Amino acid sequence: MSDLKNDRFLRALSRQSVDATPVWIMRQAGRYLPEYRAVRARAGDFMTLCKTPELACEVTLQPLERFALDAAILFSDILTIPDAMGLGLGFTDGEGPAFERPVRDAAAIRRLSVPDPEQELGYVLDAVRLVRRELDGRVPLIGFSGSPWTLATYMVEGGSSKGFSRIKSLLFDQPSVLDELLKLLSDSVTLYLKAQIAAGVQAVMIFDTWGGVLTPADYQRFSLQPMRSIVTQLKADPETAKVPVILFTKGAGAWLEDMAQTGCDALGLDWMIGLDEARRRVGSQVALQGNLDPAALYARPERIRAMVADILEQFGTGNGHVFNLGHGISKDVNPDHLAVLVDAVHELSRPYHRSDGG
Amino acid sequence: MSDLKNDRFLRALSRQSVDATPVWIMRQAGRYLPEYRAVRARAGDFMTLCKTPELACEVTLQPLERFALDAAILFSDILTIPDAMGLGLGFTDGEGPAFERPVRDAAAIRRLSVPDPEQELGYVLDAVRLVRRELDGRVPLIGFSGSPWTLATYMVEGGSSKGFSRIKSLLFDQPSVLDELLKLLSDSVTLYLKAQIAAGVQAVMIFDTWGGVLTPADYQRFSLQPMRSIVTQLKADPETAKVPVILFTKGAGAWLEDMAQTGCDALGLDWMIGLDEARRRVGSQVALQGNLDPAALYARPERIRAMVADILEQFGTGNGHVFNLGHGISKDVNPDHLAVLVDAVHELSRPYHRSDGG
Repeated sequence: MSDLKNDRFLRALSRQSVDATPVWIMRQAGRYLPEYRAVRARAGDFMTLCKTPELACEVTLQPLERFALDAAILFSDILTIPDAMGLGLGFTDGEGPAFERPVRDAAAIRRLSVPDPEQELGYVLDAVRLVRRELDGRVPLIGFSGSPWTLATYMVEGGSSKGFSRIKSLLFDQPSVLDELLKLLSDSVTLYLKAQIAAGVQAVMIFDTWGGVLTPADYQRFSLQPMRSIVTQLKADPETAKVPVILFTKGAGAWLEDMAQTGCDALGLDWMIGLDEARRRVGSQVALQGNLDPAALYARPERIRAMVADILEQFGTGNGHVFNLGHGISKDVNPDHLAVLVDAVHELSRPYHRSDGG
Repeated sequence: MSDLKNDRFLRALSRQSVDATPVWIMRQAGRYLPEYRAVRARAGDFMTLCKTPELACEVTLQPLERFALDAAILFSDILTIPDAMGLGLGFTDGEGPAFERPVRDAAAIRRLSVPDPEQELGYVLDAVRLVRRELDGRVPLIGFSGSPWTLATYMVEGGSSKGFSRIKSLLFDQPSVLDELLKLLSDSVTLYLKAQIAAGVQAVMIFDTWGGVLTPADYQRFSLQPMRSIVTQLKADPETAKVPVILFTKGAGAWLEDMAQTGCDALGLDWMIGLDEARRRVGSQVALQGNLDPAALYARPERIRAMVADILEQFGTGNGHVFNLGHGISKDVNPDHLAVLVDAVHELSRPYHRSDGG
C-alpha cells in the first residue's frame, strides 16, 4: 500500500487505527448521478457500458470527483460470470437483469464450464487496470462478484424473481445438482476474483443478494458453504491471501457468527441489525461495513447528519468500521445528500479515533 | 367453544394439548385455486369480491372443501381500513394494491378519522356473520387486519413500494406526524378487530408485512409499539380479552422477544428463522405459527412430506404449534401439493402429541 495516498479503507478492513472512519457507498457509480446517466445514454445499453473499459473506468471515477470517498468500486455487474458462461446477459429497464439462455436442468448445468477470466472476462480486467492507472493511488479499488447462490438464482430463474419457484424446485428436488452448479460457480468466482486482484483490485467483496430467502439450514449449505470455499481458496494462495475479503448477505442478521467464521476479513451489514449488536457478536473477528438505511438519504441534511452520528455512536470507539449504506444507493436520491453523508462521516467520526490516532 | 367440532387451532394457540398439530395456510382462499379464480372472474374485480359478503363467504369456505384445514380465515384484504378512511383502494393486476388518494402530508393525515366498523366496514362484518353461519362450528374463523405500520406504508406510498421513499421521508423528517398517523391507525385497527370479534371471529391476526424494512430502533417505535397498543386494548376489554391474537412481522427473527412481550398469544414466523430456535427463545411465552418455506410447495410430494416432518421435528413434542407457511401461498402452486402438506401435518404430528393426548 506504499503508493496509496488514502489507506483508511484498507486499514479499517484490517482493524488498524485510522484518523477518521472511511466511507464508500454501494452503487456509488450509478443512476442517481446525472453524469452517469449521460455516459449510460452515450453507451446505449448497460452491458455496453460494462464491456467498454474506457466507459466503465469513467463512471467508476465519477463519484470520486464529487465526494470525498475513501474507496472506488469497479463499475461492473454481479452477473458477468454467467454471461461469460454463455447465458447471454441483458437488462430490461425497470425489470432488471435477464438471461437469454437460463439453465434449468442437470444437462444444461453439466454443459457449463469455468470461464477463463483473461479470455472471457478480459473487459473487466482491462477496466481494473485502467482504473488503477487513472486513480494513481488516490484511494484503493474494490473488485467484486455475485455469490454462487445469487448467481445460481439468476441463472436458473432467468432474471429477477419474486417466488424463486425454479431455483427452489431445483434445491428441494435435486439438491445435488444444485451443489454441482454451486461448486462450478465457487471455482469460477475464485478464479475471477484472483484475476481481478492480479489486475489490481485491492479488496474484494462478494454480494449475496439472495441468501436471505433461504431457511437457516439451506443458507448454510447453498449460500454460505460456497462463499466459504471461495474465501478458503483466496486465503490459501500467497498471491491473494493478503487482499481483504468482504462478505455481504442481505438479511443475514441471524447468521453473522457463521459468516465471520469463513475466514473473511469483513462483513457487510444491512440496516435491519444494530451495528452495536453486530460488533458485540463478531467485532473481535472481523471488520464491519455499513449500515445506514439507504432511505436515510431521502431525509433533510440535518437528519442525515444525525443518523450518521447514530451509526458512528453504535460502533463506538476502536477500529474496524467502514461506513456504508445497508444496501445500494437508490436512483432517485439527491446527490447533494450523499455529499452531506460523506462529510458527516469524516467530521463526526474523528473524536472516536483520537485515542488510537494520537 | 362448546359448539366447535374442531378446536385444535384454538387449543394450540392457548398452548393446550391436541391430538395432532393444527394447520391452516396464509392466503388459503386465493388464486392458486381454480374455483377461486372462477368466483373472482364472476365478481369482475378484487374489491367487489371483498365487498360482497356472499362471494367473500363462498371463497372463504372453498379451501375447506378440498383440504382438512383446522381453521378458516376470512377472505378480505389487509387494506380495508384505509379504504374506509376514503383513500379509494383498487388493485392492478401484477402490481398489487393502489390507493387513488394517498396521504402525503400532515394536513392530509389530520383530515383522517377512525372509521366506524359497523357503518363503513359493514361488508366485512356481514361476511364474518355469514361465514360463521355456514361454517356451523366445523372449524374456527380467523379475522385480521394489516398492522398500523403496514397500513401507513401503503397509505403514504400509494401502493406497493421498493424503496419506501415517501414513508421513510415522513419517518425521518416528521416522525411525530407519523406517530399521529400510527396512533389513529392503532385505534382504528383495535375497533375493527373488536367489531370482527363481536361479529364472530374466534382469533385475530395482525399482518405486519413491512416491519422488516425498518432498523431495530425504528421497528420498536413505528411498528411494534402500535401493535402493542392494539393488543393492550384488546386484552383490556372483557369482550375481547380471551380471543387469541397472533402477531406476524415478516423478517422479524431478531425481535421475537420484543414481539412476545406485547401480550399477544402467538407469533407468526417466516422461514428464515429456525422453529427450534424460536421455540427456545419465546416458546414459553407464546404459541408459534409457521414456518415452512412457501416454495416447498413447488417440490415433489415426497419432498414436501420430508420438509413437513422436519418442521414438526424442529418444534418437537409439547404444545403451542400451529403449522403454516412462512408467508402466503403462491398463486402458481399445484393445489394437490397443498393436500399433501395438510395430510402430512396431521399424520406425521400425531406421535409428537401422544404423551399429552393420552
